[in-house]
Amino acid sequence: MAVEPVLIGGEWRAANASATFHADDPATGEALPEEFPVSSWTDCDATLDAATHAAKSLRTASPESLAEFLTRYAARIEARAGDLVEAAHRETALPKSPRLAGVELPRTTDQLRQAAAAARDGSWAMPTIDTQRNIRSHFAPLGPVWVFGPNNFPFAFNSVAGGDFATAIASGNPVIAKANPSHPRTTERLAEEAFLALAEAGLPRATVQLLYHFPYADGERLAADPRTGALAYTGSRHAGLKLKAAADRAGTPAYLELSSVNPVLILPGALAERGEALAGELTGSCLLAAGQFCTSPGLVLLFAGDPAERFLAAVEARLEAVAPTPLLSAGVLRSLGENVNGLRAAGAQLVCGGSPLPPPGFRYQNTLLRVDGETFLASPAELQREAFGNASLMVLLRDAEQAAQVLEQIEGNLTASIYSDTSGADDALYNQLAPILRARVGRLLNDKMPTGVAVSPAMNHGGPFPATGHPGFTSVGIPASLRRFAALHCYDNVPARRLPAALQDANPNGRMWRLIDGAWTQADVAR
Amino acid sequence: MAVEPVLIGGEWRAANASATFHADDPATGEALPEEFPVSSWTDCDATLDAATHAAKSLRTASPESLAEFLTRYAARIEARAGDLVEAAHRETALPKSPRLAGVELPRTTDQLRQAAAAARDGSWAMPTIDTQRNIRSHFAPLGPVWVFGPNNFPFAFNSVAGGDFATAIASGNPVIAKANPSHPRTTERLAEEAFLALAEAGLPRATVQLLYHFPYADGERLAADPRTGALAYTGSRHAGLKLKAAADRAGTPAYLELSSVNPVLILPGALAERGEALAGELTGSCLLAAGQFCTSPGLVLLFAGDPAERFLAAVEARLEAVAPTPLLSAGVLRSLGENVNGLRAAGAQLVCGGSPLPPPGFRYQNTLLRVDGETFLASPAELQREAFGNASLMVLLRDAEQAAQVLEQIEGNLTASIYSDTSGADDALYNQLAPILRARVGRLLNDKMPTGVAVSPAMNHGGPFPATGHPGFTSVGIPASLRRFAALHCYDNVPARRLPAALQDANPNGRMWRLIDGAWTQADVAR
Repeated sequence: MAVEPVLIGGEWRAANASATFHADDPATGEALPEEFPVSSWTDCDATLDAATHAAKSLRTASPESLAEFLTRYAARIEARAGDLVEAAHRETALPKSPRLAGVELPRTTDQLRQAAAAARDGSWAMPTIDTQRNIRSHFAPLGPVWVFGPNNFPFAFNSVAGGDFATAIASGNPVIAKANPSHPRTTERLAEEAFLALAEAGLPRATVQLLYHFPYADGERLAADPRTGALAYTGSRHAGLKLKAAADRAGTPAYLELSSVNPVLILPGALAERGEALAGELTGSCLLAAGQFCTSPGLVLLFAGDPAERFLAAVEARLEAVAPTPLLSAGVLRSLGENVNGLRAAGAQLVCGGSPLPPPGFRYQNTLLRVDGETFLASPAELQREAFGNASLMVLLRDAEQAAQVLEQIEGNLTASIYSDTSGADDALYNQLAPILRARVGRLLNDKMPTGVAVSPAMNHGGPFPATGHPGFTSVGIPASLRRFAALHCYDNVPARRLPAALQDANPNGRMWRLIDGAWTQADVAR
Repeated sequence: MAVEPVLIGGEWRAANASATFHADDPATGEALPEEFPVSSWTDCDATLDAATHAAKSLRTASPESLAEFLTRYAARIEARAGDLVEAAHRETALPKSPRLAGVELPRTTDQLRQAAAAARDGSWAMPTIDTQRNIRSHFAPLGPVWVFGPNNFPFAFNSVAGGDFATAIASGNPVIAKANPSHPRTTERLAEEAFLALAEAGLPRATVQLLYHFPYADGERLAADPRTGALAYTGSRHAGLKLKAAADRAGTPAYLELSSVNPVLILPGALAERGEALAGELTGSCLLAAGQFCTSPGLVLLFAGDPAERFLAAVEARLEAVAPTPLLSAGVLRSLGENVNGLRAAGAQLVCGGSPLPPPGFRYQNTLLRVDGETFLASPAELQREAFGNASLMVLLRDAEQAAQVLEQIEGNLTASIYSDTSGADDALYNQLAPILRARVGRLLNDKMPTGVAVSPAMNHGGPFPATGHPGFTSVGIPASLRRFAALHCYDNVPARRLPAALQDANPNGRMWRLIDGAWTQADVAR
């Protein structure tokens, strides 16, 4: 079988490959037939050259044409939904329905359409005008954006269709997508549709490019390449930190989502009031997609005692009653085992699970571990290692003082959830402990599991290091996520005929929000 | 004479010092009498502990109390203006009037008052509310901010009074100021007033702390310390990159202003139309404070030919007619000589100047160098080295094609200026060349020298690496500059009684701009 082509410079063509690879079917553990190339630097170099040219053309592209591309692409994804869902299911073993067809694919097209609306509207760029001094500024595209997609969302975070892709394009940048090697066929199918939509919208043909795989060293090289405008990465902490170091040395903006154990703190009143219901809610969240969500609750904190023991038993019973679903790859299976063993080596005790299942497929027992607060405090870093997959650790806290000590040790995370009772009995404890968690996470939830990440303007899917590389940016939530791929451009004393449309006196579309002399308005500059 | 005290944890106290130092009087070159400590890590550690506690208290401080501090501090600076101007003049040799008393001190108090207004108003934090899903987010303080001030603005960029200080405080963070060792007395005097103003406003006494100096290694250590929330640095590229590397490894947000040669491109029509006037304008800008502005025009680009030669001669005549004023320190004098020699070694020819002046004081001849485009293209990095001080390099371009090639080699800068004629004859060339510069700078000026940096909401005092560490942030311009010192905090399903005031349904002050369901408004959430 021929090696699949890469998309470089507006052409599907044979890769300059140093090797090839196959993805696996996680349900069987067997290699899928298609052979994909591991590109050499020659391919990276060619995509960068083509993207540099595309970036120049895109500077003068209309917001309308960007929006046109994104909406046509969304429609094409819908038209090919059956084929895409089939490909994604085969490569990820995620259920076709509701997960892939009913939830993730609609989320993906919704993100593309929200990004299109943001491009059309233009408010994301925060045009700011000082009429007295004639100084005007806004956010403008950075240039070629590399998007490294994760393994766990073959559509919604796909490097050539997901949130990073949609927002990098909507902010006016070409994208070079690096497929996640666990679902290359899905990515190829998506890129085919993106490429056709580019032509329909009249955008440069190199606005979207696709490589499937390349060596780590080339990732570091491209992160530092002066042609790279920015990069977005979602994946393992290990690989992400290598990319970050290379990008940082070169001053390349890099937006990384690295790891998160998403602490869930259940206060005593809530446990007493509705422990059984919470056990169900927690188990459901932990087992969503076999725990392979960035926001999966990996660390559950509760106060030691009989109610906690009953809760633990209830969660254990639920975990044991559900058959484990396949993990995304042999690598995830291996890492999960290593991480569970690492947690045990640091003092966590196994409540249930803790072993891989025999073939076929990449499966691991639904796993629960427990540790007391004192043991946690003795090895806080080791006991916060992310066990990506269907495993969670419960920390049993002695009292409020120890709870505060434990929370002070929590690393930067995407989310934290706090459950409290409905009568207000937990309020004093909440007031004491919530501020400690607040400072350590991007999103604080109450009485809600963290696994839902709504595409809302108010969402923050981000957080302090090491959850991400910078606590001021979100990768989900439009329009804020577009600003990651932009530089602040100021015009000082520049005459009107040379200003971008967004900074002219007249509001270019009559609805763009602009900060004029300190007030947000959709009006023209008053003459 | 006793060693001057440091301000740690709400007390002026003796430093734990590994050494001491004296600043010099740049006009005489002689050491000033006051002895200042070089702190050991013990002092850094103590400030971090105290700032961590202060940060916790500040979380619940009212915006009003932050504003109260900043405005009282501004008033105290004005009340002590004579003393402060005297101290700054002695340590920098900058003219008392108009520069220090008439320009820089008022700019500083204006910045403090603008920051106070931003704190009071609260719009800087961009509160964003999704009423349907009850998801709410805003920017919230990061925690202790280290401010490293530069040598060239003893008031307006002072680590304990300048723009970084004002905005870090206004966004709710304690500041640990690292004085610039060329003006420690001025910094001490300012910190005395800040400390008194803290008490008047009822803020924690460790909200402002001051150290004068410490070894590089301790700077790297504090940049990576988990207690550090962020750091802001303005200074040399060499020291800044060390801090950046340490901060990046630890995931600490670091905002750095490193270097800039601020290219000024004079198009042929402008040269023909008003060459003589432009020579005067350029020389004035180059010699402001002996060229020691971050935005000083260090690289001037013009098209070769008779008009360019006449322009060069006119600039040379002006430079030679003005007596050089003192540089800020022996270090600046030494570096300037090294950099001028480096430019010459890379092929630049001396037009005038090029040597230090004999004592007394730190003075260097007003210096102009020239190079042709071809030579520039042979060594673009070496010929862009920043010669901080009263030296500039003119590049004589052969034609438009070479101009484009040269501009393509320009590194990230804070600013670029383009001069064109008033009849429109330069427009074609402008349209060809401006986009190349636009992508490389934070602020693009037309027919204006870059040395004025208005404190305007539309200002961008920032730019692509290596001018700064990230092209999306500005260090001047309120409210945007406040967001550097903030993390995005999202609240998902959190009941009203637990939300910060800014995210409640009711607008807390009736004038805060909030993005509610996609529209900016000062109104309450509609019930």
